[in-house]
Amino acid sequence: MDINALENLLTRFKEGEVSHETIFEALRKLPFEDLGFARVDHHRALRQGFPEVIYCEGKTPLQVAQIAQSICADGAPLLATRADKSTFAAVCQMLPDVEYDKVARIISRVDENAKPVIGEVAVVCAGTSDLPVAEEAAVSLEVMGCNVSRFVDVGVAGLQRLLSVVPEIAKAQVIIAIAGMEGAMPAVLAGLVAQPVIAVPTSVGYGASFGGIAALLGMLNSCSSGVTVVNIDNGFGAAMAAWKILRATNFN
Amino acid sequence: MDINALENLLTRFKEGEVSHETIFEALRKLPFEDLGFARVDHHRALRQGFPEVIYCEGKTPLQVAQIAQSICADGAPLLATRADKSTFAAVCQMLPDVEYDKVARIISRVDENAKPVIGEVAVVCAGTSDLPVAEEAAVSLEVMGCNVSRFVDVGVAGLQRLLSVVPEIAKAQVIIAIAGMEGAMPAVLAGLVAQPVIAVPTSVGYGASFGGIAALLGMLNSCSSGVTVVNIDNGFGAAMAAWKILRATNFN
Amino acid sequence: MDINALENLLTRFKEGEVSHETIFEALRKLPFEDLGFARVDHHRALRQGFPEVIYCEGKTPLQVAQIAQSICADGAPLLATRADKSTFAAVCQMLPDVEYDKVARIISRVDENAKPVIGEVAVVCAGTSDLPVAEEAAVSLEVMGCNVSRFVDVGVAGLQRLLSVVPEIAKAQVIIAIAGMEGAMPAVLAGLVAQPVIAVPTSVGYGASFGGIAALLGMLNSCSSGVTVVNIDNGFGAAMAAWKILRATNFN
Amino acid sequence: MDINALENLLTRFKEGEVSHETIFEALRKLPFEDLGFARVDHHRALRQGFPEVIYCEGKTPLQVAQIAQSICADGAPLLATRADKSTFAAVCQMLPDVEYDKVARIISRVDENAKPVIGEVAVVCAGTSDLPVAEEAAVSLEVMGCNVSRFVDVGVAGLQRLLSVVPEIAKAQVIIAIAGMEGAMPAVLAGLVAQPVIAVPTSVGYGASFGGIAALLGMLNSCSSGVTVVNIDNGFGAAMAAWKILRATNFN
Amino acid sequence: MDINALENLLTRFKEGEVSHETIFEALRKLPFEDLGFARVDHHRALRQGFPEVIYCEGKTPLQVAQIAQSICADGAPLLATRADKSTFAAVCQMLPDVEYDKVARIISRVDENAKPVIGEVAVVCAGTSDLPVAEEAAVSLEVMGCNVSRFVDVGVAGLQRLLSVVPEIAKAQVIIAIAGMEGAMPAVLAGLVAQPVIAVPTSVGYGASFGGIAALLGMLNSCSSGVTVVNIDNGFGAAMAAWKILRATNFN
Amino acid sequence: MDINALENLLTRFKEGEVSHETIFEALRKLPFEDLGFARVDHHRALRQGFPEVIYCEGKTPLQVAQIAQSICADGAPLLATRADKSTFAAVCQMLPDVEYDKVARIISRVDENAKPVIGEVAVVCAGTSDLPVAEEAAVSLEVMGCNVSRFVDVGVAGLQRLLSVVPEIAKAQVIIAIAGMEGAMPAVLAGLVAQPVIAVPTSVGYGASFGGIAALLGMLNSCSSGVTVVNIDNGFGAAMAAWKILRATNFN
Amino acid sequence: MDINALENLLTRFKEGEVSHETIFEALRKLPFEDLGFARVDHHRALRQGFPEVIYCEGKTPLQVAQIAQSICADGAPLLATRADKSTFAAVCQMLPDVEYDKVARIISRVDENAKPVIGEVAVVCAGTSDLPVAEEAAVSLEVMGCNVSRFVDVGVAGLQRLLSVVPEIAKAQVIIAIAGMEGAMPAVLAGLVAQPVIAVPTSVGYGASFGGIAALLGMLNSCSSGVTVVNIDNGFGAAMAAWKILRATNFN
Amino acid sequence: MDINALENLLTRFKEGEVSHETIFEALRKLPFEDLGFARVDHHRALRQGFPEVIYCEGKTPLQVAQIAQSICADGAPLLATRADKSTFAAVCQMLPDVEYDKVARIISRVDENAKPVIGEVAVVCAGTSDLPVAEEAAVSLEVMGCNVSRFVDVGVAGLQRLLSVVPEIAKAQVIIAIAGMEGAMPAVLAGLVAQPVIAVPTSVGYGASFGGIAALLGMLNSCSSGVTVVNIDNGFGAAMAAWKILRATNFN
Repeated sequence: MDINALENLLTRFKEGEVSHETIFEALRKLPFEDLGFARVDHHRALRQGFPEVIYCEGKTPLQVAQIAQSICADGAPLLATRADKSTFAAVCQMLPDVEYDKVARIISRVDENAKPVIGEVAVVCAGTSDLPVAEEAAVSLEVMGCNVSRFVDVGVAGLQRLLSVVPEIAKAQVIIAIAGMEGAMPAVLAGLVAQPVIAVPTSVGYGASFGGIAALLGMLNSCSSGVTVVNIDNGFGAAMAAWKILRATNFN
Repeated sequence: MDINALENLLTRFKEGEVSHETIFEALRKLPFEDLGFARVDHHRALRQGFPEVIYCEGKTPLQVAQIAQSICADGAPLLATRADKSTFAAVCQMLPDVEYDKVARIISRVDENAKPVIGEVAVVCAGTSDLPVAEEAAVSLEVMGCNVSRFVDVGVAGLQRLLSVVPEIAKAQVIIAIAGMEGAMPAVLAGLVAQPVIAVPTSVGYGASFGGIAALLGMLNSCSSGVTVVNIDNGFGAAMAAWKILRATNFN
Repeated sequence: MDINALENLLTRFKEGEVSHETIFEALRKLPFEDLGFARVDHHRALRQGFPEVIYCEGKTPLQVAQIAQSICADGAPLLATRADKSTFAAVCQMLPDVEYDKVARIISRVDENAKPVIGEVAVVCAGTSDLPVAEEAAVSLEVMGCNVSRFVDVGVAGLQRLLSVVPEIAKAQVIIAIAGMEGAMPAVLAGLVAQPVIAVPTSVGYGASFGGIAALLGMLNSCSSGVTVVNIDNGFGAAMAAWKILRATNFN
Repeated sequence: MDINALENLLTRFKEGEVSHETIFEALRKLPFEDLGFARVDHHRALRQGFPEVIYCEGKTPLQVAQIAQSICADGAPLLATRADKSTFAAVCQMLPDVEYDKVARIISRVDENAKPVIGEVAVVCAGTSDLPVAEEAAVSLEVMGCNVSRFVDVGVAGLQRLLSVVPEIAKAQVIIAIAGMEGAMPAVLAGLVAQPVIAVPTSVGYGASFGGIAALLGMLNSCSSGVTVVNIDNGFGAAMAAWKILRATNFN
Repeated sequence: MDINALENLLTRFKEGEVSHETIFEALRKLPFEDLGFARVDHHRALRQGFPEVIYCEGKTPLQVAQIAQSICADGAPLLATRADKSTFAAVCQMLPDVEYDKVARIISRVDENAKPVIGEVAVVCAGTSDLPVAEEAAVSLEVMGCNVSRFVDVGVAGLQRLLSVVPEIAKAQVIIAIAGMEGAMPAVLAGLVAQPVIAVPTSVGYGASFGGIAALLGMLNSCSSGVTVVNIDNGFGAAMAAWKILRATNFN
Repeated sequence: MDINALENLLTRFKEGEVSHETIFEALRKLPFEDLGFARVDHHRALRQGFPEVIYCEGKTPLQVAQIAQSICADGAPLLATRADKSTFAAVCQMLPDVEYDKVARIISRVDENAKPVIGEVAVVCAGTSDLPVAEEAAVSLEVMGCNVSRFVDVGVAGLQRLLSVVPEIAKAQVIIAIAGMEGAMPAVLAGLVAQPVIAVPTSVGYGASFGGIAALLGMLNSCSSGVTVVNIDNGFGAAMAAWKILRATNFN
Repeated sequence: MDINALENLLTRFKEGEVSHETIFEALRKLPFEDLGFARVDHHRALRQGFPEVIYCEGKTPLQVAQIAQSICADGAPLLATRADKSTFAAVCQMLPDVEYDKVARIISRVDENAKPVIGEVAVVCAGTSDLPVAEEAAVSLEVMGCNVSRFVDVGVAGLQRLLSVVPEIAKAQVIIAIAGMEGAMPAVLAGLVAQPVIAVPTSVGYGASFGGIAALLGMLNSCSSGVTVVNIDNGFGAAMAAWKILRATNFN
Repeated sequence: MDINALENLLTRFKEGEVSHETIFEALRKLPFEDLGFARVDHHRALRQGFPEVIYCEGKTPLQVAQIAQSICADGAPLLATRADKSTFAAVCQMLPDVEYDKVARIISRVDENAKPVIGEVAVVCAGTSDLPVAEEAAVSLEVMGCNVSRFVDVGVAGLQRLLSVVPEIAKAQVIIAIAGMEGAMPAVLAGLVAQPVIAVPTSVGYGASFGGIAALLGMLNSCSSGVTVVNIDNGFGAAMAAWKILRATNFN
């Protein structure tokens, strides 16, 4: 069963023409590729709209390369996060056309034929040191087909820097707000705009920042309601959440 | 300056006809009411689309009642969370037409003339003990004009219960997934659907659940990417985030 | 040795006319009163400018009353914090002219003849629920002879509330900034003013606020530099620190 | 006293023919070898059915080699965990026939004459990054004479991967379920099968995984009852527990 | 489809006569009863050999009673843990023949016709204060058809008390070892016997026991290998794990 | 075997006339009384010089009373800590001559014929609120036959109070230093004297004292070396340690 | 608008001649320089009296150098903390006249024309290992124009060392007290002097010092009231707070 | 004033012939040497019987060497802990006759003329990996003039190893019991002997041992009463405490 057939089936399921027993049976039988050390989830693209993303930490460069090859075998886009240079080298040998962003630590291959996702995500970060996390979010979004606007170093210590860009930020549909240390910026920003704000605590700081716990707790307790939070330094996770929101938007 | 004028100004700001200096000056001069013990933020409705919500814990019944009266003075809807019976009694004396949901612990008054929010939120909870948090989310959403579908007691200990309702859940645009103990359900659910999943850890559990820390950490580390998280037991926060997502959707 | 003699000695010590051996011997021999269960430090007023303050929690009402009587025996002012009504009743029986502030939970007797402290302290709190801590700070300062200006419910969720009072706050010499939940307000405020900011985290919040840990960590990691922090809910401690700063000011 | 004699005594003890005073005196007098820096417990094999296992971390390569030599002196099997290459080199010099598994980090020598343990253990792990812990468990079991079936990369993010192997997993008598990040897989699996599930949290993850705490807490709070847990990354401990269960089985 | 038919199907599945697709489809279609606030998992008995167990905390007495009625409707045994007296009263009104053990806080109804589980579990506890947890384990096991032997107050402070009962303990197939404070007993016991030891930390203690964390960590780090651990105070969980081990034994 | 015979045997063991096998066999066969819910360790007096002490929390009044009766059956002294009034009432019914100290929360019966322990223990506490812990230590020591000198409210906030009593404190052989909040007093005191200092952190404090963790950590990290620490609020444990030191002293 | 104009405006604002709307508009329109990866806050000098300080950790040497160049472009003083040698090298290339203090890890350029700040700060540290933090505080203060007196290795383990310098310390207007391990020195010192004490916990210690948590908690719970605390190892933050206090002093 | 004069004065103070004012004045005027980066406490030997001990971590080799030289200038013994090889090299250049123990990481010079301390300390450790901590304790004691007996690798996993040496251990006057992982050995040992037991948790372990927290908590919660605890890995601190106990013994 190829992708088009499945997409067709999925559409009919949404319209009630196909029972959920049918659709689940179909999905469960979809091949995933067992590489021995990994089972590549080939129908994640169908369930969720984007293929499996490789989290490189804890995997050997060779393992990443083999998983990447399996994912790209049928032309799917590639997104591999937390990749160091040696991993990039290993993937390059198998897939010469991948790109590497060394700030974001992302290996990627964009699907040129993919439909762009309608809407825009603002990636806002409080300090220069938060840039790697911000770029992980921004580059992930771009690989997944989103428009991204970036706002760097707008922490609350100099509030006028944030205030001056709020109108620009407010042009996006979804906001990713990234901060380390006390992590106050997302709460302040969420009080000023109407958009969904996804907060990303970073491990930037020292001492009682406890590797990002201070920022994480601050964001979870935001007095501005409606802020949601992802794991410390998880730029990719925030990107994925923003992308899902935009796609939910596009469906209506 | 009344609401229509401001809405008009806001629209022109979006279209670039009005500078951000103008809009900010306008907003900053909006009256807020200083009750001595509280400053009621009357233009939150303008910035964010819904008036200030009262978090009742730590406030006396009289304080809540006076804030509620201030909010409702010009016909705005009311949403007061974590309210006990004595608070409800105090509010009732000033605003006889409010309603009280004792499971959700919410005092509310719906604005009958408000436009309904387009779209639907699925509120899914893992166990019966999670119901108060689930109802806090669901009732909040209903007060804010959203459609809600409820799915109770579908934790992963009996996976078939969850699998059997996934197709129903997947009809919503946004999913709020609530669980205590190990908090695994949102991760499992997020792997099965394409919608944004907002996870709410609850304090249900004992011993090493540490009042919801176990569930919170589980959700922050979800291997299904794109799950965002709010504070422990924060049903209202999840509702507000879902509502913002739907409104972002409606804007397009 | 009476107070004037000691004040005289202390002055000469500051001027280098008296050796530190002399001053220390003098101080060490000062009587303190041994009540059996407490040793009342009668020369704290000399070392630090204000007599011993009674922290009532963990002491029986009778113990507090006896310590209070010992402190007030020679007309000294009284400040007893974290006092409940039954403690107030016990103290009243021995010292009928004391006053009780039930929000601040402070029993006090002002020394009418004391010189007022020059300068003013701004006590700023983020939410209505932070009021008891704010009043503990404010009332403590007033008992110690300071001028206090109060600013309530100016949290960052509605930034315009804070911005509108910043010029008023900036008229004080020292600022006490009090917040629970994510505790972001002191960092934002400290970025806008030049005064020393003493931040007080409060236990207001729930779930991942962990009884004030989130706010405490946020304040310790403030990206606005120069913020200092006291213990959770420690309004009195902040007041004492502010008072010491003003007195250091007055010395010059 | 040789092994057969002790086994005989142990059997009679089980049958009530020998008093516990007798058996304890016998056991307490068994020689252990004092190497100065270690006391090799030579009758652990009698008490528990397998000789002392060497945990290599914190020991010098020479210390490990000397302990290994002492254990193997009378032909006993060898199992040394958390061994790096230099430790392997040191052991090899004394015991040339040992083997080294570099993924599992185990040095071993199998007792060819040992009776195989009846039954099978399924070693199931959620992600590719969990492989070293899974192999520590699997190789340990194989050295101790058990049959092992391996299931890799079946985390809950792609539930169909897990569901498709549940019937195979359910052929084992005992299941070891290994996961990092949110650690949800063991809870989901335990809800689907009747076998005892021993959960192993791993330190795979970042940020709020806190080196495996998130997975550990998740497993301890599993809503599927009857899941037991071992220390973070403790593949060997899970293997030992599974082996004890199989042996208890074999006794009946 | 009734229970016998399913049992038959299950047996054939084990023997390879029925595919796993068939068995899963059958299982997924089994009715569960939707009570609105709970979905009673009626085929848990088939998957796992014992019906759903009710954890009463966080549920109203009426909710527990209705779930209990649903479980018992077709004669199934009942096990409800953490039940207080008012819950017992509510259940009694619907199911007059249930029993209540006030130390174990368990409401139960034994299935008189159930086959007893072969084998015995030793429930060992370190101190008198651990008795409620020990009884939760022991009574749960008895309701599930196991033989239980109890050993109370055999902590390591008086080692002879433990040594004197080790031979008796060693007659069981599985050992549940329960301790609070430093939680050392399970590690000591596991070093003396060959059986699987399931350790249960209790919240008995004060100060740096942190509600059972000290005992929990102690057990997770046991130097005697092969100890597995359940949540703090989770007597029932240990019972369920022991019961699964015995059943795995019985299958062979 | 009565106590004198055992004392004799113990003496000969110390002198090398009796082997350790003999002494252990003798000790292991000593009766302990199995009350069903408790095993009273009757030869602890022989091993350690004082009979088993009852920790009352988590035990019912009746259980305490029955254990107390068992301990006192042969005239032994009684020490029961953390006892509330209802427990005292229950013990009184069986043992009318026991005494109750309501500050220390200790039920006791002194053995009038016991030899006094040579030496003296100074019990020093930082604040009035630490008195219950100090009295638990002091009364325990008195029941065990030690001389105690008490020093109350000598915390470091008024250093002269501590300095003035250091010479008196230094007359004791062992010092128990008790403090809550930041717990600095034991470190300061240990820098001034040569005696062993046993530090007891108390739960006195609030906010970031975290129930005594701050004081506990402070004491564990004392820059004055040689300070040892017991559990939070564990006055009895400190007393027992001091008593063992004095007895070790007396042996020489 | 140049600095003198702003200073003039600021003064008139203090005197009530200029409205806060005016001053805020003026401030918000001040240029900040957007370097792409950083927004240099050029009017911080106006709001707070000293230009933006660069926290170097997490920034590349080139980023630091570019920010430094931007700050110094108009002759402003430079303060860059946590700078390693390679950062110094990069800054030197652009700004050859900067200095580097390798103990304090500070890159600086003093503004020779700046008015000195009136008053003196005592920087007191408990141990030799605390020196880097003490120097970060002292050098920061000197760059900002303060007089500093240093007191090293005066921890409480040898109280006479501290007592002998108290009179010297008491000549300063503000005290910075730095300690690791148990962190007791600031509490002891604050009990002896009348000045404001800013406590800095350091990460000096091991084991249960938990990277400075023990000292941090000790300082937050100081029984000497009025002690304020900054983040672990945050010498610069303490310096900034002390500087703000002195400036507040100078205003009067 | 030389040492003999002070010893004489101290003795008279003990006998009441000299007032505490006299003795304190004498002590306070004793010279300490100010090296700029350190104040060497030369009369610690008088207050406490042994000169200042150097904790080397966080100090440069040169700083250690200079402090060592200052201590040894008048022939005093030297004890420097946590010393690496480069520190030893630096000290050697100034003091060629010092010794270095690389397992204990101690630099020392014994005072050959010092009177030996009467009594013996048993240093007992649970595992081979605990040896460095055990040697830190043992070597420290030997440098301070104590007799030490060592017992290695007697953890509770093989209880017979511990039981077989208990009679030997019991010949000492004081016991230092060292363990990592779950830290159970000190509790078990303390239940078997009458001597004071000083427990030292070590950082040996992984995962949920959290760098020694598990062992630390276990020891603080020991069900065998009278166990006192020092910081994680603090072999020296335990040695100092044991030495103080022996000296207290010798005084009588």
